[in-house]
Amino acid sequence: MARPRLVALYTDFGTSDVYAGVLRGTVKSMAPEVEAIDVTHGIEPGDVFAAAFALLSAVPFLPRGTVHLCVVDPGVGTSRRVLAVRAAGHTFVGPDNGVLAPVVEALGGPTDLREVTNERLMRKRRSATFHGRDVMAPVVAHLARGIDFANVGDEVAGMVPLPGFTPHVADGRAAGRVLHVDRFGNVITNLLPGDLAGPAGSWDLRVAGRGIERWGTTFADVAPGELLVYPGSVGFLEVAVRDGSAARELPARPGDPVDATRRGV
Amino acid sequence: MARPRLVALYTDFGTSDVYAGVLRGTVKSMAPEVEAIDVTHGIEPGDVFAAAFALLSAVPFLPRGTVHLCVVDPGVGTSRRVLAVRAAGHTFVGPDNGVLAPVVEALGGPTDLREVTNERLMRKRRSATFHGRDVMAPVVAHLARGIDFANVGDEVAGMVPLPGFTPHVADGRAAGRVLHVDRFGNVITNLLPGDLAGPAGSWDLRVAGRGIERWGTTFADVAPGELLVYPGSVGFLEVAVRDGSAARELPARPGDPVDATRRGV
Amino acid sequence: MARPRLVALYTDFGTSDVYAGVLRGTVKSMAPEVEAIDVTHGIEPGDVFAAAFALLSAVPFLPRGTVHLCVVDPGVGTSRRVLAVRAAGHTFVGPDNGVLAPVVEALGGPTDLREVTNERLMRKRRSATFHGRDVMAPVVAHLARGIDFANVGDEVAGMVPLPGFTPHVADGRAAGRVLHVDRFGNVITNLLPGDLAGPAGSWDLRVAGRGIERWGTTFADVAPGELLVYPGSVGFLEVAVRDGSAARELPARPGDPVDATRRGV
Repeated sequence: MARPRLVALYTDFGTSDVYAGVLRGTVKSMAPEVEAIDVTHGIEPGDVFAAAFALLSAVPFLPRGTVHLCVVDPGVGTSRRVLAVRAAGHTFVGPDNGVLAPVVEALGGPTDLREVTNERLMRKRRSATFHGRDVMAPVVAHLARGIDFANVGDEVAGMVPLPGFTPHVADGRAAGRVLHVDRFGNVITNLLPGDLAGPAGSWDLRVAGRGIERWGTTFADVAPGELLVYPGSVGFLEVAVRDGSAARELPARPGDPVDATRRGV
Repeated sequence: MARPRLVALYTDFGTSDVYAGVLRGTVKSMAPEVEAIDVTHGIEPGDVFAAAFALLSAVPFLPRGTVHLCVVDPGVGTSRRVLAVRAAGHTFVGPDNGVLAPVVEALGGPTDLREVTNERLMRKRRSATFHGRDVMAPVVAHLARGIDFANVGDEVAGMVPLPGFTPHVADGRAAGRVLHVDRFGNVITNLLPGDLAGPAGSWDLRVAGRGIERWGTTFADVAPGELLVYPGSVGFLEVAVRDGSAARELPARPGDPVDATRRGV
Repeated sequence: MARPRLVALYTDFGTSDVYAGVLRGTVKSMAPEVEAIDVTHGIEPGDVFAAAFALLSAVPFLPRGTVHLCVVDPGVGTSRRVLAVRAAGHTFVGPDNGVLAPVVEALGGPTDLREVTNERLMRKRRSATFHGRDVMAPVVAHLARGIDFANVGDEVAGMVPLPGFTPHVADGRAAGRVLHVDRFGNVITNLLPGDLAGPAGSWDLRVAGRGIERWGTTFADVAPGELLVYPGSVGFLEVAVRDGSAARELPARPGDPVDATRRGV
């Protein structure tokens, strides 16, 4: 038999409650031979943008075949659907609230997209408020053990998108947003270096209303305390302060505007 | 040989110190084939009620045969005993300070209850202040590898109870407390739906002194911003605010009173 | 084949970003049969002293043969070296900024010390700002799978030390510092009991400027609320308040001075 797949967990559960442990425990109960790794449980409660960014940041560094479970689900208990999606050899399970859309698009779009409806794969007694434990984790355990993907439910035509996750780029202008501020105070935008064609420094960049003068590749390109824009480790343009916090210096928060204009436009 | 048992960890160590990692490392050093999962290390320091609630919330979702290690041990260095308990196929190790009592009772009471005294199962050099690492984790590693349970020490007659964990229910009144506030601001009481006999809504419920009008099954039963009581995913009655924080709205904290009165009493 | 080695992770990444999960995922992608455990990701950003203390605290409780990866790397993107070190059967990988020096010295010094330069062991596309993921974790995965240690790069003569980590002890005086404050408010110094020769209590101890009167072995040696110095579970002298926080009572923070004077000197 093939090696069982890895399960990767992304939630907004934090680690002070038992919810994240119970999610992992549910997978281990049903699929003892499967390994479940915590990518992060520190997404802000209900922050679908942050969760979409977490998936996009981590998926390229996990093995093909991984089953990714994302439980950032502020609509639990409403009629929102639960999706299972295959894309580029990866499998995703999560609520249909936009959280899966950016990573699936980045992987080239879904190769198989289904609504999770097969109750035989779920916990028999299901709570109304914890579908991560009672619906999604059991389905993920089955998928990681290798059941046929079509078992989860019927194909559906499309998934809820996440408007605003991708910047608007046209005519020498790019309008985006701050996607994430990391623990080091680095400010991660949704602009890709490729969005800004031409030589580095030929664009004026404003993040949260403040112009960033210096472009580089790493912190050492500027003096301590100086602001810098560079292609970050995830692929997006980031703003950092060497030996400091760009988030505090700018200041900037997730959702703040990021604007780029080609010089002479 | 049977598959080695799962070890589940519950502590108040946090994750900024190495203590939780060392606990896991100790188990892995002594029992490399055993898998140890972190249920939570985020219990407030010394909060025996919160730890008892964590066990009660997680144990039903972990496989029978799991060895649960709970190190919330404010009495370390005093004469408090260390217990090993079997109940309903689960095994528990922890200090005899009440932390194990509610979950063991919920599982039908102990089938085997012993004080951990066998020094041959412990680390040879034992600190006076970290018995989780030096006494309990080694014993847990031995138990997960399958040593005979009776090896840990002699049987004892009873364990320290946790007064106040269970509500007082009689004559159309129920007097309980807030057990936990989770990351989403949901306020979890120690009342079970079965404590309040009769149709939903036939009881007046006060949590931290405030009356809760709306009863339902999930957040979508009320409008955004509204308070709601519902049977939570762990089994207890919980109070939530849809798209908000009940803990902030009430406000309520662990230990606050919860009172229910049957209408007409 | 021998059982694959354990990998132990120590970082300042926190758990709100995906960085720690990606580190683990990178190891699992390249070495699926290797187990990676998180010792801590809660080291303060860039705090090399705290990271050195974390290694020193955890390594004695992990199996010989473990590959320890410490990514506290404020100099990423500068010319600082990446080291791989063997000492007393353990293997360490981390930046050459002092973080590895105390634990390697405590283990008797390096038996093999090399700069990591073999690009064939690293990720092909390497970012300028996340060498933990792109350089160190891949090398750790190879080492845990058992490649010959000499493959990582050439031997080097020495490593960057960490001045101030070890106290100055001479002539009846010891001058040290606070290494760490743990979650319980215990204040961990860099003095070893052996630094203060003679009977306990024959030295005057000042921590962050305040004299500590009571010496003991555990919290129960004093009344609730009282300050106490005792040999901590890691081996260093610690100051605690029974049922309270010594860090708040003193108050004290990492880096604060610790001074001991033998009575009569």
